[in-house]
Amino acid sequence: MSAAFPHVSDPTGLHRVLDRPAVLPQAAQALDTRRELWPDEVRVRVERLNLDAASFRQLERTHEGSGDAVRAAVLDIVRTRGKMQNPETGSGGMLVGTVEEVGPDSPLGLAVGDRVATLVSLTLTPLVIEDDLRAWDGRSEQVPCDGYAVLFGRSIAAVLPDDLPAPLSLSVMDVCGAPALTERVVHHYAEPVVVVIGAAGKSGSLSLAAARDAGAGRTIGVVPHRDEADLLEAAGLADEVAVADARDPIALRDAVEKAGGPADVTIVCVDVPGCEGGAVLATADGGTVVFFSMATSFSAAALGAEGLAADVTMLVGNGYVPGHADRALELLRAHDGVRSLFEGRLEA
Amino acid sequence: MSAAFPHVSDPTGLHRVLDRPAVLPQAAQALDTRRELWPDEVRVRVERLNLDAASFRQLERTHEGSGDAVRAAVLDIVRTRGKMQNPETGSGGMLVGTVEEVGPDSPLGLAVGDRVATLVSLTLTPLVIEDDLRAWDGRSEQVPCDGYAVLFGRSIAAVLPDDLPAPLSLSVMDVCGAPALTERVVHHYAEPVVVVIGAAGKSGSLSLAAARDAGAGRTIGVVPHRDEADLLEAAGLADEVAVADARDPIALRDAVEKAGGPADVTIVCVDVPGCEGGAVLATADGGTVVFFSMATSFSAAALGAEGLAADVTMLVGNGYVPGHADRALELLRAHDGVRSLFEGRLEA
Repeated sequence: MSAAFPHVSDPTGLHRVLDRPAVLPQAAQALDTRRELWPDEVRVRVERLNLDAASFRQLERTHEGSGDAVRAAVLDIVRTRGKMQNPETGSGGMLVGTVEEVGPDSPLGLAVGDRVATLVSLTLTPLVIEDDLRAWDGRSEQVPCDGYAVLFGRSIAAVLPDDLPAPLSLSVMDVCGAPALTERVVHHYAEPVVVVIGAAGKSGSLSLAAARDAGAGRTIGVVPHRDEADLLEAAGLADEVAVADARDPIALRDAVEKAGGPADVTIVCVDVPGCEGGAVLATADGGTVVFFSMATSFSAAALGAEGLAADVTMLVGNGYVPGHADRALELLRAHDGVRSLFEGRLEA
Repeated sequence: MSAAFPHVSDPTGLHRVLDRPAVLPQAAQALDTRRELWPDEVRVRVERLNLDAASFRQLERTHEGSGDAVRAAVLDIVRTRGKMQNPETGSGGMLVGTVEEVGPDSPLGLAVGDRVATLVSLTLTPLVIEDDLRAWDGRSEQVPCDGYAVLFGRSIAAVLPDDLPAPLSLSVMDVCGAPALTERVVHHYAEPVVVVIGAAGKSGSLSLAAARDAGAGRTIGVVPHRDEADLLEAAGLADEVAVADARDPIALRDAVEKAGGPADVTIVCVDVPGCEGGAVLATADGGTVVFFSMATSFSAAALGAEGLAADVTMLVGNGYVPGHADRALELLRAHDGVRSLFEGRLEA
């Protein structure tokens, strides 16, 4: 260990940040990718990277669809930064691999040989690619890869279950924060009316199932089109299905009202901007709105609620809740409707 | 009433929106400013507008400091839109006036003759200026004004108390959502450690006082400089005062730790971008972070917490909690330290 680096590790991974002054790993320009582990770390042999969709599309556009150029760009980013973080989009992705070494003080509960997916972003995960991505044609977000990655004390990784195909498990784990937080919020109310906006999507369908299992009195799934309503009705996950444009506050409020609202708990899973006002209006005083959409505007939510004199609690959807991955996989196993929606998306 | 407008009013003010298709009043290009009230409305005789600081600065810059040009611009906006909403900044301000008519179905509890401040933004308040702003030189955010404004069923207005100077009351009402929500969150914990970031400011000092009154076990005020620390220490509102740059997550975490942290409840009142990671890191698992800063980035908060595997609840600071204005004024009266900080700012 060079004298320039700390001998003591930090659970956030601060000890691998090369920037001076130090910032958190996600904000860092470059990470230290040394193979040797600090005592609370875990090293994973990587078999596949799943690039974030926004990042992959940006690379494809920039390199005009040339797979070789996209591959070269990813290799260059990882070599330069010691992590996969697209400098334009700021986003990364996740990885699948097998645990190859566990530090004596690691709190993650992993064992050598476990096949895992990382649930923290590649944007903060030290990564070394050792096969020049030879098995990847640069034309898909799924990147076969040989190399290693390092997990910190506060990282999160989930063991892939044996009973489900890996792509299905990954697809569930990708959104597993939403049902876990939904469950927690629903527990604060007695038989609440729960409205899920974007209910036929991945996080939406899991959130509906979680709400029902957690004791919701009535679940209302809101979708933008008749096609999605048909899908959701066939899945049997919601007591009521309503079709409304979530960007139109009045239409959303009225549709929810007609379906048995207003909501005590509103879960926003739809990834389009401008849904804050409608979500607030569809929610009763004393209710809670959880925003899972990355398209949420903080100021639109804060000023919107104030402008409506709406006494609602608004939560930033935190993607981490302890046990979230296992719980989401259980929901998939227990609800055929969730599984059929997920499998339909994987086939599409 | 013309047939083009609804005969039934909506508590959100939708019936006064001229845009087609209709949007909420805050998002509307133009509002109907007719003098006649719908049954749930209130009309206020305006004596002063307080323009939002960001809006006023933008107008000053655009018109190179010409007071006459700034006045003409405000008159033009209000005439065109039927409300004061700066098209560039999107922001408005608040107003002070006297209730002149109360519709028979108004739920606001106001009486003719009450001197009130509106706590909803001017961006959604129908407004007519009748004196061409003759008494205003266009050089200050404080705009003497004769005219009328309309409050909806869901608007909020607070009666100005007799025992406090109006500028002091207004200054408190401007940030009264923060202490009210702080109190509510603190009540969810037993003797929590409460950290207020930006503790010497208006919302920060009120939040510290609210936290102590609500049963905080320890209050820690974080400020950026020694000068503010001296002010805050003299005010006696925090058990501990810590100096740290809230944009540096590690420095913030360590400063809070040293002052008796981590926090169970963290209140972010400082209006600079980039404080999300530090606020999360300074908060214990199971804790709550409340973001009151309009500079908060939704995605930085959501991804930051996930990246740190932080099991914290994150709230969007809603500026409305029932009774918030009265409660904030009580805090000012009860805590000499709060009053001295506010009076110091008004003199500056």
